[in-house]
Amino acid sequence: MAELCGLKYEDVQVGQEIPSFTHQFDRMDAVIYAGASGDFNPIHTNPYFAKDVAMLPDVIAHGLFNMALLGKTVVDWIGDPGYLKKLSCQFRGMVIPGDTVIFKGKVREKLEGNLVVLDVWAEKADGSDVLKGGEATVYLP
Amino acid sequence: MAELCGLKYEDVQVGQEIPSFTHQFDRMDAVIYAGASGDFNPIHTNPYFAKDVAMLPDVIAHGLFNMALLGKTVVDWIGDPGYLKKLSCQFRGMVIPGDTVIFKGKVREKLEGNLVVLDVWAEKADGSDVLKGGEATVYLP
Repeated sequence: MAELCGLKYEDVQVGQEIPSFTHQFDRMDAVIYAGASGDFNPIHTNPYFAKDVAMLPDVIAHGLFNMALLGKTVVDWIGDPGYLKKLSCQFRGMVIPGDTVIFKGKVREKLEGNLVVLDVWAEKADGSDVLKGGEATVYLP
Repeated sequence: MAELCGLKYEDVQVGQEIPSFTHQFDRMDAVIYAGASGDFNPIHTNPYFAKDVAMLPDVIAHGLFNMALLGKTVVDWIGDPGYLKKLSCQFRGMVIPGDTVIFKGKVREKLEGNLVVLDVWAEKADGSDVLKGGEATVYLP
């Protein structure tokens, strides 16, 4: 079977940035994610409820949807989803339809046992925080 | 095991109405049904698309969601979903959030083999058609 992960532990450098992933949030993302996650809070899918009841500017992306795209960004880099061992982050900013979010990562540390720790985060095109203080731990062959 | 279906073929009369089911459509119904069905057409969940692009009065219920409630009405009557053998109907009216729909059925014919055919339909509170010309065939012990 072909190796899903083309990266080698020895080739990764501390300070190295991984390819970023950019996504423009659409209200349909939240409709699909609601069904996938089972989180049917109307702040994510009903703009009248979001604006008139919850006093938000519009529906907002599920925080875990944003985090899932952060995970995707790391997994796209390593190739094999089984090599993502840990992922954490703080939810800092709301994302509304039309917002463009950039998901990023940078190698922080190489540990024994072929483990690599990355700083990961997400920000909008204007530089404001969406996900902050994130950490991903991956295994590399 | 207890019999799910308490109805007996011999007790059912031609012309008999079954208990109706009333449901007020909420836009969250369509969000949930989109995920359950995989039909993510934005006319069902995005009111801006529905109004501004599709020129509808608002999002509309999935036709098959309405039909599912028609099936539920029959199944609630017979008790055992396995006894619903056939269900068909015509889609005649759009349902938007806030619309109250009444799902109805009436025994049309008793056939050999313990089969019962019903006329089934759905209408709004103002009497306008939602589902018309429907037919359900059920088996009764």
